Amino acid sequence: MTPSNNTNNRSSERRYTLTISCPDRAGIIAAVSGFIAQHGGFIVEASYHTDQESQRFFMRQEIRADSLPFDVSEFSSRFSGVAQTFGMTWQISDSARRKRLVLLVSKQDHCLDDLLYRWRSGELQADIPCVISNHEDLRSFVEWHGIPFHYVNIPSNNEPAKVAAFAEIARLYDTACGDVMVLARFMQILPLDLCGRYAGRIINIHHSFLPSFAGARPYHQAFQRGVKLIGATCHYASAELDAGPIIEQDTVRIDHGDSVVDMVRYGRDIEKTVLARGLRYHVEDRVLICGNKTIVFK
Amino acid sequence: MTPSNNTNNRSSERRYTLTISCPDRAGIIAAVSGFIAQHGGFIVEASYHTDQESQRFFMRQEIRADSLPFDVSEFSSRFSGVAQTFGMTWQISDSARRKRLVLLVSKQDHCLDDLLYRWRSGELQADIPCVISNHEDLRSFVEWHGIPFHYVNIPSNNEPAKVAAFAEIARLYDTACGDVMVLARFMQILPLDLCGRYAGRIINIHHSFLPSFAGARPYHQAFQRGVKLIGATCHYASAELDAGPIIEQDTVRIDHGDSVVDMVRYGRDIEKTVLARGLRYHVEDRVLICGNKTIVFK
Amino acid sequence: MTPSNNTNNRSSERRYTLTISCPDRAGIIAAVSGFIAQHGGFIVEASYHTDQESQRFFMRQEIRADSLPFDVSEFSSRFSGVAQTFGMTWQISDSARRKRLVLLVSKQDHCLDDLLYRWRSGELQADIPCVISNHEDLRSFVEWHGIPFHYVNIPSNNEPAKVAAFAEIARLYDTACGDVMVLARFMQILPLDLCGRYAGRIINIHHSFLPSFAGARPYHQAFQRGVKLIGATCHYASAELDAGPIIEQDTVRIDHGDSVVDMVRYGRDIEKTVLARGLRYHVEDRVLICGNKTIVFK
Amino acid sequence: MTPSNNTNNRSSERRYTLTISCPDRAGIIAAVSGFIAQHGGFIVEASYHTDQESQRFFMRQEIRADSLPFDVSEFSSRFSGVAQTFGMTWQISDSARRKRLVLLVSKQDHCLDDLLYRWRSGELQADIPCVISNHEDLRSFVEWHGIPFHYVNIPSNNEPAKVAAFAEIARLYDTACGDVMVLARFMQILPLDLCGRYAGRIINIHHSFLPSFAGARPYHQAFQRGVKLIGATCHYASAELDAGPIIEQDTVRIDHGDSVVDMVRYGRDIEKTVLARGLRYHVEDRVLICGNKTIVFK
Repeated sequence: MTPSNNTNNRSSERRYTLTISCPDRAGIIAAVSGFIAQHGGFIVEASYHTDQESQRFFMRQEIRADSLPFDVSEFSSRFSGVAQTFGMTWQISDSARRKRLVLLVSKQDHCLDDLLYRWRSGELQADIPCVISNHEDLRSFVEWHGIPFHYVNIPSNNEPAKVAAFAEIARLYDTACGDVMVLARFMQILPLDLCGRYAGRIINIHHSFLPSFAGARPYHQAFQRGVKLIGATCHYASAELDAGPIIEQDTVRIDHGDSVVDMVRYGRDIEKTVLARGLRYHVEDRVLICGNKTIVFK
Repeated sequence: MTPSNNTNNRSSERRYTLTISCPDRAGIIAAVSGFIAQHGGFIVEASYHTDQESQRFFMRQEIRADSLPFDVSEFSSRFSGVAQTFGMTWQISDSARRKRLVLLVSKQDHCLDDLLYRWRSGELQADIPCVISNHEDLRSFVEWHGIPFHYVNIPSNNEPAKVAAFAEIARLYDTACGDVMVLARFMQILPLDLCGRYAGRIINIHHSFLPSFAGARPYHQAFQRGVKLIGATCHYASAELDAGPIIEQDTVRIDHGDSVVDMVRYGRDIEKTVLARGLRYHVEDRVLICGNKTIVFK
Repeated sequence: MTPSNNTNNRSSERRYTLTISCPDRAGIIAAVSGFIAQHGGFIVEASYHTDQESQRFFMRQEIRADSLPFDVSEFSSRFSGVAQTFGMTWQISDSARRKRLVLLVSKQDHCLDDLLYRWRSGELQADIPCVISNHEDLRSFVEWHGIPFHYVNIPSNNEPAKVAAFAEIARLYDTACGDVMVLARFMQILPLDLCGRYAGRIINIHHSFLPSFAGARPYHQAFQRGVKLIGATCHYASAELDAGPIIEQDTVRIDHGDSVVDMVRYGRDIEKTVLARGLRYHVEDRVLICGNKTIVFK
Repeated sequence: MTPSNNTNNRSSERRYTLTISCPDRAGIIAAVSGFIAQHGGFIVEASYHTDQESQRFFMRQEIRADSLPFDVSEFSSRFSGVAQTFGMTWQISDSARRKRLVLLVSKQDHCLDDLLYRWRSGELQADIPCVISNHEDLRSFVEWHGIPFHYVNIPSNNEPAKVAAFAEIARLYDTACGDVMVLARFMQILPLDLCGRYAGRIINIHHSFLPSFAGARPYHQAFQRGVKLIGATCHYASAELDAGPIIEQDTVRIDHGDSVVDMVRYGRDIEKTVLARGLRYHVEDRVLICGNKTIVFK
């Protein structure tokens, strides 16, 4: 299936997105925007932030591709002088080169259904080279979309087999040239080496308002505590479980009449919305990581 | 100052409010509503809930006072038969007998300002016999309302003096015939014996979305964790700090640009709203405690 | 496709739902709950409301089917005496008899995708005998679910052909024994006679916060007015366009940076959520119509 | 009363705020940030927007005052060259020169109470030279704050006397050197000449989610229509009633159980919050008017 071409977001025309972080000082914006202006570049969106603790400056600029006389590779070599002067960590991406999302799922399919809908309607401007699962349940739905579905058995009690399974997942991800690994209610804890190897490229949806109710069965935990709102958190996976940099969160009101089953139902709606928003920010290079926090230039 | 008489909530006519909990079984509603109907009672609001874990039934009924041929004392003696049959824990209150709120504050006054406004505008249908504080700062504002202000020094490093201070607070509360002790950003940890003696009658506002960020400086904790929403929690004080039954919560969105100072500012608005809502539910006998949770019949 | 049997809402056990409206007076609750108790009926959820303007009383009660010694037909004949005494308009439904939803769609499929997902996951406890559309675009997706898809051409400039098309739609709906006609972004104005014939059984989702921006292109209207929130409204279709009784609404924040295209994207998420909630309330007999308003017993 | 000096928002250090609008083209950001950098200026916050319809560019920059070697007057004369090149409409403000807010109230005081609290706590960084009212009711509360209170009688049936009353209000505003006239539930329709003379400087709070329910008694209108959310709108007053550029809006959920009186109560909380937010944006020069819409750089 070829996703629809209707361009339903701000990024419908081709754009280069430049993201930068460096020590804060006067003159950074002038230097960067001066460089862009000097080549006729037309900035369509610009955002800035200074992190007070680290005194680091973060910026993101979207430039109309057709306003510049060169491509991202040429941009990169010319910009390196400015970058060096300010000690910048930076990257530039081209909207014409769509990011490749590898989705990992288990049996619950509300996030998968939501992401595949956004993909086939053209809202999620990215490619999905494959879906990986430790169950066969969702094969038919995924394949209806024309997307390859890989089954990888993850035995729960056999450590060496588990290690092999995750090695296979990593191999499939690498073979698919994945840019982002999306844990769309994958329900498995990723091994540390994967979290390290793909740091900042694994996005998880946790079904609680972190840091409350990390770990297993968060809706049961929420029910026991008697909270009046439940939530969901989209975050980068890191070595510590459910403790990585948070990209997006939201909450929804419940009351004493809601059982755990009701919470699970409300939760599905908020999980898929929060994951979709967080993933969109990542795909559009709107998320910059700063220590264990994120800057999200919406 | 006499608070205004404009009646701006549902309870403007005189009502009796009957709240009940008992083991769940068929026929409870019929028995209670039958008893009320038999005396011509006109029910204006009725709510029910069964707690699945404990298999206990909870109900609340508001009855128009003028529809019954007797007062709450007579109601009580006549109703005791029904109550005994079902093993009910129950109480009946008369809206003509306004609850008495004793407010405890420190230096921060946003919740105090909010509650006093709701009181003097007639929205909060309760009496405020006095305000107690460990600082003199808010005396003038409280006294402008014609409400007595009691200063009680609470030394931080002198345990016996602290014990005496809290004994004085309890004495002032008892002398004022308080029904509820409201910790309106009191910033002091209540001693265990007070929490026990006034269980279910001490309402606190905590400036986080519990169970996240219990204890001191929750906005600093939230800032460090990089959450994307902050919240506030209104709960009954209990022996364990910030762990009592939750009455009401809410959250508000923040982003990477918000410092701790910004969070404190956003937080004030949500703290005062959440406290006002929770307190209102309590004053209107809408909150029933079930273990460490609450049933709130809105 | 057989939708999953996992029971993920409150109504997982078989229940009878009794909904009543009648002139308000003392004793109604006692009479109804007395009747139920007399036959051993176990009430699991009960809600009441008095409309002050019309002085009508509305109630809804869910009863465990296995607690009563008879079925809904027997219930009906026995209850008719009580009903007559109070001049009740009433009905009783059996959760074992699932409602039949006929979905009408055009080309936009976000609401369709959402409803079919909720159906196949077992969350939406109803049957979908068919989907009707004036375009062929969504046939493949619908048929993948094993649901019949009927194409009905609706020519825009030919009035007699249009009349015939809607007659065909009505025929398909009747043949399918539809209980509810769901306009899931159908983008066609229903003829008056259909609105009249199926009053209270046609549910529409309008992509604005009514009464603002009724009629065509509401997001363009919202953009022109410069509002800071956009919304969606689920309502019963009536003779006047976008003016029927409102079941559910919600809003989402936008800002000056959002184009009409961005609003359409945000709007999709809120439209499908609001429609799903409103439809759920209807399917569970939680919505009672009172003049041009609704009472929704959540 | 001197409002507290605790600096509880982002603008605690002295800043210059530069706001600009001009025809869009490449190089604007470079020219402005180049000018600022050339004088050592340290930009602490920068925001941009292009209005697609008018093809106009809008920007706002906050600069640390101590980073520039001159004051706003010197800045103005030096910057005029850049401004002329790009055909800019622009202004620069100095946070050390606090804006002067003249509040107009009637009898309802929830917005007044809220604004005075924010002022005396130091959150609202502006001066309030006086409060004007057509009733004496709120004199004592205003004067307790040490703020002059002016009573101006506005007779309802005497047109010449009404004209004279508004002339007196304008005179008081001018004498107080007002920067903004805040209609904090003033309940009077301003004459056209005032709306024209102070265009972009009169801020109103309307108690509905505009454009729904403009004009009188919006909560009654909302009740009649049976909406499921009510709202409030902060906007600039213009010649057409309740139709000026919208600065901020919000909504709150209600249900069938809420009477008009309940809506009024919920409404108070949302009105004061929306007005406080909108006013804050204006005071911090975050609002730029573009036709009948606003750009709000939060």
